[in-house]
Amino acid sequence: MTAAPISRYPVPRLSDLPEDIRARIEKVQEKSGFIPNVFLMLAYRPEEFRAFMAYHDTLMDKPGGLSKAEREMIVVAVSSHNQCQYCVIAHGAILRIRAKNPLIADQVAANFRKADITPKQKAMLEFALKVTQRANEVEEADSAALRDLGFSDDDIWDIAAIAAFFGMSNRMANITSLRPNDEFYSMGRG
Amino acid sequence: MTAAPISRYPVPRLSDLPEDIRARIEKVQEKSGFIPNVFLMLAYRPEEFRAFMAYHDTLMDKPGGLSKAEREMIVVAVSSHNQCQYCVIAHGAILRIRAKNPLIADQVAANFRKADITPKQKAMLEFALKVTQRANEVEEADSAALRDLGFSDDDIWDIAAIAAFFGMSNRMANITSLRPNDEFYSMGRG
Amino acid sequence: MTAAPISRYPVPRLSDLPEDIRARIEKVQEKSGFIPNVFLMLAYRPEEFRAFMAYHDTLMDKPGGLSKAEREMIVVAVSSHNQCQYCVIAHGAILRIRAKNPLIADQVAANFRKADITPKQKAMLEFALKVTQRANEVEEADSAALRDLGFSDDDIWDIAAIAAFFGMSNRMANITSLRPNDEFYSMGRG
Amino acid sequence: MTAAPISRYPVPRLSDLPEDIRARIEKVQEKSGFIPNVFLMLAYRPEEFRAFMAYHDTLMDKPGGLSKAEREMIVVAVSSHNQCQYCVIAHGAILRIRAKNPLIADQVAANFRKADITPKQKAMLEFALKVTQRANEVEEADSAALRDLGFSDDDIWDIAAIAAFFGMSNRMANITSLRPNDEFYSMGRG
Amino acid sequence: MTAAPISRYPVPRLSDLPEDIRARIEKVQEKSGFIPNVFLMLAYRPEEFRAFMAYHDTLMDKPGGLSKAEREMIVVAVSSHNQCQYCVIAHGAILRIRAKNPLIADQVAANFRKADITPKQKAMLEFALKVTQRANEVEEADSAALRDLGFSDDDIWDIAAIAAFFGMSNRMANITSLRPNDEFYSMGRG
Amino acid sequence: MTAAPISRYPVPRLSDLPEDIRARIEKVQEKSGFIPNVFLMLAYRPEEFRAFMAYHDTLMDKPGGLSKAEREMIVVAVSSHNQCQYCVIAHGAILRIRAKNPLIADQVAANFRKADITPKQKAMLEFALKVTQRANEVEEADSAALRDLGFSDDDIWDIAAIAAFFGMSNRMANITSLRPNDEFYSMGRG
Repeated sequence: MTAAPISRYPVPRLSDLPEDIRARIEKVQEKSGFIPNVFLMLAYRPEEFRAFMAYHDTLMDKPGGLSKAEREMIVVAVSSHNQCQYCVIAHGAILRIRAKNPLIADQVAANFRKADITPKQKAMLEFALKVTQRANEVEEADSAALRDLGFSDDDIWDIAAIAAFFGMSNRMANITSLRPNDEFYSMGRG
Repeated sequence: MTAAPISRYPVPRLSDLPEDIRARIEKVQEKSGFIPNVFLMLAYRPEEFRAFMAYHDTLMDKPGGLSKAEREMIVVAVSSHNQCQYCVIAHGAILRIRAKNPLIADQVAANFRKADITPKQKAMLEFALKVTQRANEVEEADSAALRDLGFSDDDIWDIAAIAAFFGMSNRMANITSLRPNDEFYSMGRG
Repeated sequence: MTAAPISRYPVPRLSDLPEDIRARIEKVQEKSGFIPNVFLMLAYRPEEFRAFMAYHDTLMDKPGGLSKAEREMIVVAVSSHNQCQYCVIAHGAILRIRAKNPLIADQVAANFRKADITPKQKAMLEFALKVTQRANEVEEADSAALRDLGFSDDDIWDIAAIAAFFGMSNRMANITSLRPNDEFYSMGRG
Repeated sequence: MTAAPISRYPVPRLSDLPEDIRARIEKVQEKSGFIPNVFLMLAYRPEEFRAFMAYHDTLMDKPGGLSKAEREMIVVAVSSHNQCQYCVIAHGAILRIRAKNPLIADQVAANFRKADITPKQKAMLEFALKVTQRANEVEEADSAALRDLGFSDDDIWDIAAIAAFFGMSNRMANITSLRPNDEFYSMGRG
Repeated sequence: MTAAPISRYPVPRLSDLPEDIRARIEKVQEKSGFIPNVFLMLAYRPEEFRAFMAYHDTLMDKPGGLSKAEREMIVVAVSSHNQCQYCVIAHGAILRIRAKNPLIADQVAANFRKADITPKQKAMLEFALKVTQRANEVEEADSAALRDLGFSDDDIWDIAAIAAFFGMSNRMANITSLRPNDEFYSMGRG
Repeated sequence: MTAAPISRYPVPRLSDLPEDIRARIEKVQEKSGFIPNVFLMLAYRPEEFRAFMAYHDTLMDKPGGLSKAEREMIVVAVSSHNQCQYCVIAHGAILRIRAKNPLIADQVAANFRKADITPKQKAMLEFALKVTQRANEVEEADSAALRDLGFSDDDIWDIAAIAAFFGMSNRMANITSLRPNDEFYSMGRG
């Protein structure tokens, strides 16, 4: 077996990219030591790249009631449900690092109900999966139950928005057969 | 019954909004004669508003192989599957106008297989629903079948990206209980 | 696109129909101004026509605890779940007229949980959909919950019987590719 | 355990029933040696009783391309899918008798794909279950495949209509907790 | 139709089998009067035969809180869900005999919620089906509810293990097209 | 968070175990450097321990057409579908070692269709998942397609039997909340 390509769509050369996109990619490369393939896949469509990254950053990087590790738990649980190989493996790595816990990503990906997380975090993931599978049935009682556990209405929006955004991301990664970088598999394990 | 509110989250006053967001809203209001509620719901989160609209515009307004009516067909079919009341009703109105056909939106929402559309358009919607329901199973054969019908690889990305983006949008509308404006129901009915 | 035919089965001429069936059809034509296509589709099988109409009339027209608008809500919600284009569009029109509400049918068809109806009506539709999807799991507790909301045991039979009858009707309309009359789309929209 | 009652709704006394319904019941009693409980359950609603029986008789008793045993196979396969205890057990008995085969009903109820029936009959049941589970997806290709096996378009209507009618019947039996008569279990077992 | 063969895999002759397997088969033949086909199907793989029978015997024959009839109820309910013709028919016969009740197996196979069994037994079967369909969602609350009804933690293991073991058995029977012996159909019918 | 216990059932001390079971556990401990928790969980029931291990060993260790790595691919794909945390993590480790490939287990667990495996191996896993999800629909055509790819009928039994056995194992691990040993997470990662 030769390894599959990064994406089933053309991957542009860095030198051919608009300046802002190249700068963004070089920044992540500097920070991580490599370019996560999602940047290269999306760069084929510069406008979508920009919108995707702006959306991603406001959901994942802004201050708020959810810790960065908790946001990554949502990504991993939703992506595992959607069978998105790239997102489970790449965000699994980020979750291990954010949570400083080498076991947590594989636990959440396999079955979050058995993971070493708090009951409040399990309720957060249960809700994220309801948004993923049957958002049409979400009702006031779901919010009330989450507020009883200490989540604010803004936290609830965040959980739902992260689940919804990565639902989109999972679909794009599956459609483009986006390949996870080899580097992700071992990050944060040791 | 009193009508439900626009959103279960706070709706900011126009005068309190950042300039660029207010400008965008006033532009749509001028064009449509009213402010579609999705703008008011999302304005509660200005950064998400900006990313959402940028993403929306590049997928729905740019040139490409799919007509504007076809893009709206995808939105209606996906939103009906996801039981998103706002998107079915609002984009149903836009579809009627884009397609200059007062019957098409209700047909596509109820069962696109029985709609007055071409076999090529039915294949497009079949694929959009596969992306919606089981993107994890999308494979090279799906693209090959669509190319045989005359879709380019870029069209295929567009179909998938519109389905994926509105899958996110549907979830946000359901989570916020976003209410369709009364104006949408009768628009484009001739 | 040319419009699809009324039914994929032969549609008899009125003059060839048995007297009682022709009389029934002329009566509805007089009242509505047109002949709803379901009458023409079913007239291909006179015995089934008669049984279907007798069943329909006793469930939809007799006195009882459910208003006529409520019965049509059940039809629209069940038919939307079953993706029956004819029933969603034709009974959507009847629902708008019965409820004197131009918005209600599109709301119920898209997601009844977000419709401008009472909590009691939402519970009625929740039960109608349980009968539709998993009648095998209906149990005494379902009836008890409905009685607590003010429904009688006879009302419960009516909800279930309407859901069951239109489940049959939805299947027949899908199998025959029954086409909704153009007139239905705009009826009762105000 | 005491045995469950015939129906969770009141069961009228024969002497209280309208003449035509009592006559129908006495006729079946004479023929079978007992009154199948479905007659007593439905007699609570005389108009529904009449429409149900008229519909049943035209589908199950009229001449046509499907043998009476084949019609009962459809009933048993559909009722087993819908988990309708009354219909599986009562129509299982009728199937054994019609087919003069003591094994066939239990085989079809458990998994028709492994039953001692012809490939043509398996295709018939596969279609009946598609009508039951996803009639919205039935398309011209389904009819073409059945015609290739020797079914006429009228046979296809019959298969679909029997599946649809018993889908309704299954729901009513589950809702009323209709109890199968003890006599059915051993009938036709040879 | 000629009857289907015992198994789609070769069925060894008794005289070719290892001594211990032949002895086991002769013992069941002596007791039942015939050789249940599952023994012949599995004998094609002697090591799997031995492990299967050892597992079966410890779950079904050892002392414990569940009666032998209750264990067979679990087998019939799970096997019906999995559409395993052999297991529904063979273990249906055993259930009738163990429970000394000619009606119970057909009732449990069709819809255990309507069977003449106790509420405690219905809860047992509800749990067995949860293990069958979504063991990943089983949680402490399930055990607590069963303990409230009088089941011990060991009983809960037994219910789950029987459901899990027959889930495996159902798959093997479906894969090999294992045919139920004609004798089973009428056993224990009184 | 403190880590969850090994099993929600009592874990016997090695010194209290029957001689053969203790020997088996000491052998695996010697080979692996630790005792995989599944041995301790199952040791609570010595007879089930013995049958489980005998079944496991004949399926996973005997000679045959499937390589040991391929057998572990089946285990990982099936266990991921069933959301069995223990099996995904423990057998993921074994798969990495057997395949001498640090990436393969995470790929197969997330979405085997995107894994670096051969088309023949993908067809093997597709079949294993059909056995897992709808063995009742497996038919002669499935075997024919696998034989066309070079699998023998015995290989097909092996694929199905491994899927079926680990379906059982997944259910037991979920029911007992079996905890993966920390050692597994990093094994074979290179």
